[in-house]
Amino acid sequence: MSTKGEQTREKILNEARLLFKQKGFGATTINDLLDASGTTKGNLYFHFSDKEAVVLEVLQREQQSFYRFIDQAFSGKSAAAGLDHFFHNALEKNRQSGFVGGCLFGNAALETSDTSPLFAGLVRDVFTEWIKKFEEKISSAQAAEQIRTDIPAGDLAEMVVATVEGGIMQSRLQKSADPLKRSLETLRRVLGLKVNQ
Amino acid sequence: MSTKGEQTREKILNEARLLFKQKGFGATTINDLLDASGTTKGNLYFHFSDKEAVVLEVLQREQQSFYRFIDQAFSGKSAAAGLDHFFHNALEKNRQSGFVGGCLFGNAALETSDTSPLFAGLVRDVFTEWIKKFEEKISSAQAAEQIRTDIPAGDLAEMVVATVEGGIMQSRLQKSADPLKRSLETLRRVLGLKVNQ
Repeated sequence: MSTKGEQTREKILNEARLLFKQKGFGATTINDLLDASGTTKGNLYFHFSDKEAVVLEVLQREQQSFYRFIDQAFSGKSAAAGLDHFFHNALEKNRQSGFVGGCLFGNAALETSDTSPLFAGLVRDVFTEWIKKFEEKISSAQAAEQIRTDIPAGDLAEMVVATVEGGIMQSRLQKSADPLKRSLETLRRVLGLKVNQ
Repeated sequence: MSTKGEQTREKILNEARLLFKQKGFGATTINDLLDASGTTKGNLYFHFSDKEAVVLEVLQREQQSFYRFIDQAFSGKSAAAGLDHFFHNALEKNRQSGFVGGCLFGNAALETSDTSPLFAGLVRDVFTEWIKKFEEKISSAQAAEQIRTDIPAGDLAEMVVATVEGGIMQSRLQKSADPLKRSLETLRRVLGLKVNQ
Protein backbone atom coordinates (compact mmCIF):
# COMPACT_ATOMS: atom_id res chain seq x y z
CA MET A 1 0.00 0.00 0.00
CA SER A 2 1.22 3.43 -0.84
CA THR A 3 1.39 6.26 1.64
CA LYS A 4 -0.54 9.49 1.20
CA GLY A 5 2.71 11.20 0.20
CA GLU A 6 3.33 8.61 -2.50
CA GLN A 7 -0.21 9.01 -3.77
CA THR A 8 0.23 12.79 -3.99
CA ARG A 9 3.49 12.31 -5.86
CA GLU A 10 1.82 9.93 -8.35
CA LYS A 11 -1.09 12.31 -8.81
CA ILE A 12 1.25 15.20 -9.62
CA LEU A 13 3.21 13.09 -12.14
CA ASN A 14 0.08 11.77 -13.86
CA GLU A 15 -1.51 15.20 -14.20
CA ALA A 16 1.81 16.70 -15.31
CA ARG A 17 2.11 14.10 -18.08
CA LEU A 18 -1.33 15.02 -19.43
CA LEU A 19 -0.63 18.75 -19.25
CA PHE A 20 2.78 18.38 -20.94
CA LYS A 21 1.13 16.39 -23.74
CA GLN A 22 -1.69 18.85 -24.32
CA LYS A 23 -0.24 22.26 -23.49
CA GLY A 24 3.44 21.53 -23.91
CA PHE A 25 6.29 21.60 -21.41
CA GLY A 26 7.02 25.29 -21.65
CA ALA A 27 3.45 26.52 -21.35
CA THR A 28 2.63 24.38 -18.30
CA THR A 29 3.18 26.39 -15.13
CA ILE A 30 3.59 25.28 -11.53
CA ASN A 31 0.12 26.74 -10.91
CA ASP A 32 -1.31 24.51 -13.66
CA LEU A 33 0.25 21.52 -11.90
CA LEU A 34 -1.22 22.59 -8.56
CA ASP A 35 -4.71 23.15 -10.02
CA ALA A 36 -4.76 19.84 -11.90
CA SER A 37 -3.46 17.74 -9.04
CA GLY A 38 -5.26 19.58 -6.23
CA THR A 39 -1.97 19.89 -4.37
CA THR A 40 -0.57 22.75 -2.33
CA LYS A 41 2.62 24.48 -3.37
CA GLY A 42 4.32 23.25 -0.19
CA ASN A 43 3.38 19.69 -1.02
CA LEU A 44 4.63 19.90 -4.60
CA TYR A 45 7.97 21.37 -3.56
CA PHE A 46 8.30 18.69 -0.90
CA HIS A 47 8.34 16.10 -3.70
CA PHE A 48 10.05 18.03 -6.51
CA SER A 49 12.73 20.72 -6.41
CA ASP A 50 11.27 22.56 -9.44
CA LYS A 51 9.29 22.10 -12.66
CA GLU A 52 12.34 20.65 -14.41
CA ALA A 53 12.44 17.82 -11.86
CA VAL A 54 8.81 17.01 -12.71
CA VAL A 55 9.56 17.11 -16.46
CA LEU A 56 12.57 14.83 -16.01
CA GLU A 57 10.68 12.20 -14.04
CA VAL A 58 7.71 12.28 -16.44
CA LEU A 59 10.09 11.76 -19.37
CA GLN A 60 12.01 8.98 -17.60
CA ARG A 61 8.79 7.11 -16.80
CA GLU A 62 7.51 7.59 -20.34
CA GLN A 63 10.82 6.23 -21.63
CA GLN A 64 10.44 3.01 -19.62
CA SER A 65 6.79 2.68 -20.59
CA PHE A 66 7.64 3.26 -24.28
CA TYR A 67 10.40 0.63 -24.23
CA ARG A 68 7.87 -1.88 -22.86
CA PHE A 69 5.41 -0.81 -25.57
CA ILE A 70 8.03 -1.33 -28.29
CA ASP A 71 8.83 -4.85 -27.11
CA GLN A 72 5.17 -5.85 -26.98
CA ALA A 73 4.18 -4.06 -30.17
CA PHE A 74 6.86 -5.82 -32.25
CA SER A 75 5.68 -9.30 -31.29
CA GLY A 76 4.58 -11.54 -34.14
CA LYS A 77 5.08 -14.96 -35.71
CA SER A 78 7.56 -13.51 -38.20
CA ALA A 79 9.64 -10.34 -38.48
CA ALA A 80 7.20 -8.98 -41.06
CA ALA A 81 4.25 -9.78 -38.79
CA GLY A 82 6.08 -7.97 -35.98
CA LEU A 83 6.50 -4.86 -38.14
CA ASP A 84 2.87 -5.00 -39.24
CA HIS A 85 1.83 -5.47 -35.62
CA PHE A 86 3.86 -2.45 -34.58
CA PHE A 87 2.18 -0.21 -37.17
CA HIS A 88 -1.21 -1.48 -36.04
CA ASN A 89 -0.43 -0.89 -32.35
CA ALA A 90 1.02 2.57 -32.94
CA LEU A 91 -2.22 3.57 -34.64
CA GLU A 92 -4.35 2.07 -31.86
CA LYS A 93 -2.27 3.67 -29.11
CA ASN A 94 -2.86 7.07 -30.69
CA ARG A 95 -6.50 6.36 -31.51
CA GLN A 96 -7.16 5.52 -27.86
CA SER A 97 -5.90 8.94 -26.81
CA GLY A 98 -8.35 10.54 -29.28
CA PHE A 99 -5.32 12.09 -31.01
CA VAL A 100 -4.99 14.48 -28.11
CA GLY A 101 -1.46 14.93 -26.85
CA GLY A 102 0.30 12.97 -29.58
CA CYS A 103 3.76 11.57 -28.93
CA LEU A 104 5.32 12.98 -25.77
CA PHE A 105 8.82 12.44 -27.19
CA GLY A 106 7.96 14.13 -30.47
CA ASN A 107 6.62 17.10 -28.52
CA ALA A 108 9.68 17.10 -26.28
CA ALA A 109 11.95 16.85 -29.31
CA LEU A 110 10.49 20.03 -30.77
CA GLU A 111 10.24 21.88 -27.48
CA THR A 112 13.51 20.98 -25.79
CA SER A 113 15.99 20.49 -28.67
CA ASP A 114 17.24 24.05 -28.54
CA THR A 115 16.75 24.89 -24.89
CA SER A 116 17.42 21.90 -22.65
CA PRO A 117 20.41 19.60 -23.30
CA LEU A 118 19.39 17.21 -20.49
CA PHE A 119 15.89 16.57 -21.83
CA ALA A 120 17.08 16.58 -25.44
CA GLY A 121 19.63 13.87 -24.54
CA LEU A 122 16.96 11.63 -23.04
CA VAL A 123 14.71 12.11 -26.08
CA ARG A 124 17.63 11.34 -28.43
CA ASP A 125 18.23 8.08 -26.53
CA VAL A 126 14.58 7.10 -27.00
CA PHE A 127 14.66 7.66 -30.75
CA THR A 128 18.03 5.94 -31.13
CA GLU A 129 16.70 2.88 -29.33
CA TRP A 130 13.47 2.88 -31.32
CA ILE A 131 15.30 3.15 -34.67
CA LYS A 132 17.65 0.33 -33.56
CA LYS A 133 14.71 -1.95 -32.78
CA PHE A 134 13.18 -1.17 -36.17
CA GLU A 135 16.50 -1.86 -37.89
CA GLU A 136 16.75 -5.28 -36.23
CA LYS A 137 13.21 -6.24 -37.26
CA ILE A 138 13.65 -4.95 -40.81
CA SER A 139 16.97 -6.76 -41.09
CA SER A 140 15.32 -10.04 -40.02
CA ALA A 141 12.45 -9.45 -42.45
CA GLN A 142 14.97 -8.79 -45.22
CA ALA A 143 16.78 -12.06 -44.45
CA ALA A 144 13.41 -13.83 -44.85
CA GLU A 145 12.61 -11.78 -47.98
CA GLN A 146 9.45 -10.41 -46.38
CA ILE A 147 10.42 -6.80 -47.14
CA ARG A 148 12.38 -4.98 -49.86
CA THR A 149 16.07 -5.81 -49.67
CA ASP A 150 17.53 -3.13 -51.97
CA ILE A 151 17.88 -0.48 -49.25
CA PRO A 152 19.89 -0.99 -46.01
CA ALA A 153 17.71 -1.82 -42.97
CA GLY A 154 19.14 1.13 -41.01
CA ASP A 155 18.12 3.63 -43.71
CA LEU A 156 14.62 2.20 -43.91
CA ALA A 157 14.33 2.20 -40.09
CA GLU A 158 15.26 5.87 -39.86
CA MET A 159 12.75 6.82 -42.53
CA VAL A 160 10.02 4.72 -40.91
CA VAL A 161 10.40 6.47 -37.54
CA ALA A 162 10.34 9.89 -39.24
CA THR A 163 7.16 8.92 -41.10
CA VAL A 164 5.43 7.60 -37.96
CA GLU A 165 6.27 10.78 -36.03
CA GLY A 166 5.13 13.01 -38.89
CA GLY A 167 1.97 10.92 -39.25
CA ILE A 168 1.14 11.31 -35.56
CA MET A 169 1.63 15.07 -35.96
CA GLN A 170 -0.80 15.20 -38.90
CA SER A 171 -3.41 13.02 -37.16
CA ARG A 172 -3.22 15.16 -34.07
CA LEU A 173 -3.68 18.30 -36.15
CA GLN A 174 -6.68 16.84 -38.01
CA LYS A 175 -8.04 15.13 -34.85
CA SER A 176 -8.54 12.03 -36.96
CA ALA A 177 -6.87 8.64 -37.27
CA ASP A 178 -6.91 8.92 -41.07
CA PRO A 179 -3.64 10.76 -41.81
CA LEU A 180 -1.56 8.38 -39.65
CA LYS A 181 -3.52 5.37 -40.90
CA ARG A 182 -2.99 6.30 -44.55
CA SER A 183 0.72 7.09 -44.03
CA LEU A 184 1.24 3.72 -42.33
CA GLU A 185 -0.61 1.94 -45.14
CA THR A 186 1.53 3.70 -47.76
CA LEU A 187 4.62 2.87 -45.70
CA ARG A 188 3.70 -0.85 -45.77
CA ARG A 189 3.43 -0.63 -49.55
CA VAL A 190 6.66 1.27 -50.24
CA LEU A 191 8.49 -1.13 -47.89
CA GLY A 192 7.05 -4.06 -49.85
CA LEU A 193 6.01 -5.63 -46.56
CA LYS A 194 4.71 -9.18 -47.07
CA VAL A 195 3.03 -10.32 -43.86
CA ASN A 196 1.46 -13.59 -44.99
CA GLN A 197 4.54 -15.43 -46.06
CA MET B 1 10.55 54.52 -45.92
CA SER B 2 9.02 53.01 -42.85
CA THR B 3 8.11 55.00 -39.77
CA LYS B 4 9.65 54.34 -36.38
CA GLY B 5 6.41 52.66 -35.33
CA GLU B 6 6.53 50.31 -38.30
CA GLN B 7 10.15 49.48 -37.56
CA THR B 8 9.25 48.64 -33.95
CA ARG B 9 6.41 46.45 -35.14
CA GLU B 10 8.74 44.60 -37.54
CA LYS B 11 11.36 44.16 -34.84
CA ILE B 12 8.80 42.63 -32.47
CA LEU B 13 7.52 40.23 -35.15
CA ASN B 14 11.02 39.14 -36.21
CA GLU B 15 12.18 38.50 -32.65
CA ALA B 16 8.90 36.76 -31.82
CA ARG B 17 9.35 34.40 -34.76
CA LEU B 18 12.81 33.38 -33.53
CA LEU B 19 11.61 32.91 -29.95
CA PHE B 20 8.58 30.88 -31.04
CA LYS B 21 10.86 28.61 -33.11
CA GLN B 22 13.38 28.06 -30.36
CA LYS B 23 11.41 28.17 -27.11
CA GLY B 24 7.95 27.41 -28.42
CA PHE B 25 4.79 29.49 -28.45
CA GLY B 26 3.63 28.61 -24.96
CA ALA B 27 6.93 29.17 -23.21
CA THR B 28 7.57 32.58 -24.79
CA THR B 29 6.31 35.32 -22.49
CA ILE B 30 5.51 38.96 -23.17
CA ASN B 31 8.63 39.81 -21.15
CA ASP B 32 10.73 37.62 -23.48
CA LEU B 33 9.32 39.58 -26.42
CA LEU B 34 10.13 42.90 -24.70
CA ASP B 35 13.69 41.82 -23.84
CA ALA B 36 14.43 40.48 -27.32
CA SER B 37 13.01 43.44 -29.20
CA GLY B 38 14.13 46.15 -26.78
CA THR B 39 10.58 47.51 -26.71
CA THR B 40 8.54 48.89 -23.85
CA LYS B 41 5.33 47.21 -22.75
CA GLY B 42 3.36 50.29 -23.79
CA ASN B 43 4.86 50.12 -27.26
CA LEU B 44 4.14 46.42 -27.70
CA TYR B 45 0.53 46.79 -26.61
CA PHE B 46 0.15 49.76 -28.95
CA HIS B 47 0.85 47.40 -31.86
CA PHE B 48 -0.65 44.14 -30.58
CA SER B 49 -3.63 43.48 -28.30
CA ASP B 50 -1.99 40.43 -26.70
CA LYS B 51 0.49 37.59 -27.27
CA GLU B 52 -2.06 35.70 -29.37
CA ALA B 53 -2.18 38.61 -31.82
CA VAL B 54 1.61 38.37 -32.20
CA VAL B 55 1.43 34.59 -32.70
CA LEU B 56 -1.30 34.97 -35.31
CA GLU B 57 0.59 37.53 -37.36
CA VAL B 58 3.86 35.55 -37.17
CA LEU B 59 2.02 32.44 -38.40
CA GLN B 60 0.23 34.35 -41.18
CA ARG B 61 3.51 35.82 -42.43
CA GLU B 62 5.22 32.44 -42.24
CA GLN B 63 2.34 30.95 -44.21
CA GLN B 64 2.82 33.44 -47.06
CA SER B 65 6.58 33.01 -46.97
CA PHE B 66 6.23 29.19 -47.00
CA TYR B 67 3.84 29.29 -49.98
CA ARG B 68 6.43 31.32 -51.88
CA PHE B 69 9.13 28.83 -50.82
CA ILE B 70 7.01 25.89 -52.08
CA ASP B 71 6.50 27.46 -55.50
CA GLN B 72 10.18 28.21 -55.93
CA ALA B 73 11.39 24.95 -54.44
CA PHE B 74 9.30 22.82 -56.81
CA SER B 75 10.74 24.43 -59.92
CA GLY B 76 12.52 22.12 -62.34
CA LYS B 77 12.70 21.00 -65.98
CA SER B 78 10.44 18.04 -65.25
CA ALA B 79 8.04 17.03 -62.47
CA ALA B 80 10.65 14.61 -61.12
CA ALA B 81 13.31 17.33 -61.18
CA GLY B 82 10.86 19.58 -59.29
CA LEU B 83 10.38 16.95 -56.60
CA ASP B 84 14.11 16.37 -56.34
CA HIS B 85 14.67 20.12 -56.18
CA PHE B 86 12.14 20.43 -53.38
CA PHE B 87 13.88 17.78 -51.27
CA HIS B 88 17.21 19.49 -51.88
CA ASN B 89 15.84 22.92 -50.94
CA ALA B 90 14.05 21.64 -47.84
CA LEU B 91 17.37 20.26 -46.60
CA GLU B 92 19.23 23.47 -47.40
CA LYS B 93 16.57 25.67 -45.78
CA ASN B 94 16.96 23.69 -42.56
CA ARG B 95 20.74 23.47 -42.83
CA GLN B 96 20.97 27.24 -43.09
CA SER B 97 19.15 27.59 -39.78
CA GLY B 98 21.70 25.24 -38.17
CA PHE B 99 18.78 22.96 -37.31
CA VAL B 100 17.73 25.40 -34.64
CA GLY B 101 14.02 26.09 -34.53
CA GLY B 102 12.94 23.50 -37.07
CA CYS B 103 9.65 23.91 -38.88
CA LEU B 104 7.47 26.59 -37.32
CA PHE B 105 4.31 24.85 -38.56
CA GLY B 106 5.40 21.48 -37.19
CA ASN B 107 6.07 23.13 -33.84
CA ALA B 108 2.74 24.95 -33.99
CA ALA B 109 0.98 21.71 -34.96
CA LEU B 110 2.24 20.01 -31.82
CA GLU B 111 1.76 22.99 -29.55
CA THR B 112 -1.58 24.35 -30.69
CA SER B 113 -3.53 21.27 -31.89
CA ASP B 114 -5.23 20.72 -28.57
CA THR B 115 -5.39 24.23 -27.21
CA SER B 116 -6.00 26.80 -29.95
CA PRO B 117 -8.53 26.13 -32.73
CA LEU B 118 -7.65 29.36 -34.56
CA PHE B 119 -3.92 28.59 -34.86
CA ALA B 120 -4.57 24.88 -35.49
CA GLY B 121 -6.86 25.85 -38.39
CA LEU B 122 -4.17 27.99 -40.00
CA VAL B 123 -1.59 25.23 -39.59
CA ARG B 124 -3.99 22.66 -41.08
CA ASP B 125 -4.45 24.94 -44.12
CA VAL B 126 -0.68 25.10 -44.61
CA PHE B 127 -0.27 21.32 -44.55
CA THR B 128 -3.32 20.77 -46.78
CA GLU B 129 -1.87 23.16 -49.36
CA TRP B 130 1.59 21.61 -49.15
CA ILE B 131 0.24 18.06 -49.58
CA LYS B 132 -1.89 19.25 -52.53
CA LYS B 133 1.19 20.74 -54.25
CA PHE B 134 3.10 17.49 -53.69
CA GLU B 135 0.17 15.49 -55.08
CA GLU B 136 0.11 17.60 -58.25
CA LYS B 137 3.84 17.18 -58.81
CA ILE B 138 3.78 13.44 -58.07
CA SER B 139 0.78 13.01 -60.36
CA SER B 140 2.65 14.75 -63.20
CA ALA B 141 5.75 12.66 -62.52
CA GLN B 142 3.60 9.51 -62.61
CA ALA B 143 2.14 10.52 -65.98
CA ALA B 144 5.71 10.81 -67.26
CA GLU B 145 6.70 7.55 -65.53
CA GLN B 146 9.39 9.33 -63.53
CA ILE B 147 8.10 7.93 -60.23
CA ARG B 148 6.33 4.74 -59.09
CA THR B 149 2.78 4.58 -60.42
CA ASP B 150 1.35 1.73 -58.30
CA ILE B 151 0.28 3.99 -55.39
CA PRO B 152 -2.09 6.98 -55.77
CA ALA B 153 -0.31 10.36 -55.86
CA GLY B 154 -2.36 11.66 -52.92
CA ASP B 155 -1.27 8.78 -50.67
CA LEU B 156 2.37 9.24 -51.61
CA ALA B 157 2.09 13.01 -51.06
CA GLU B 158 0.68 12.60 -47.57
CA MET B 159 3.42 10.13 -46.61
CA VAL B 160 6.13 12.37 -48.06
CA VAL B 161 5.05 15.37 -45.97
CA ALA B 162 4.92 13.20 -42.82
CA THR B 163 8.44 11.93 -43.55
CA VAL B 164 9.83 15.42 -44.19
CA GLU B 165 8.33 16.75 -40.94
CA GLY B 166 9.59 13.74 -38.95
CA GLY B 167 13.01 14.09 -40.58
CA ILE B 168 13.23 17.76 -39.61
CA MET B 169 12.33 16.76 -36.04
CA GLN B 170 15.12 14.17 -35.95
CA SER B 171 17.71 16.52 -37.46
CA ARG B 172 16.79 19.23 -35.00
CA LEU B 173 17.14 16.78 -32.14
CA GLN B 174 20.54 15.55 -33.36
CA LYS B 175 21.63 19.06 -34.43
CA SER B 176 22.83 17.51 -37.67
CA ALA B 177 21.67 17.50 -41.28
CA ASP B 178 22.23 13.74 -41.49
CA PRO B 179 18.88 12.34 -40.26
CA LEU B 180 16.85 14.55 -42.62
CA LYS B 181 19.33 14.01 -45.44
CA ARG B 182 19.21 10.22 -45.08
CA SER B 183 15.42 10.14 -44.78
CA LEU B 184 15.07 12.25 -47.94
CA GLU B 185 17.52 9.99 -49.78
CA THR B 186 15.58 6.88 -48.72
CA LEU B 187 12.36 8.64 -49.71
CA ARG B 188 13.74 9.24 -53.23
CA ARG B 189 14.53 5.55 -53.48
CA VAL B 190 11.22 4.18 -52.18
CA LEU B 191 9.39 6.60 -54.48
CA GLY B 192 11.43 5.29 -57.38
CA LEU B 193 12.19 8.89 -58.37
CA LYS B 194 13.98 9.07 -61.73
CA VAL B 195 15.33 12.59 -62.17
CA ASN B 196 17.43 12.16 -65.28
CA GLN B 197 14.81 11.00 -67.70
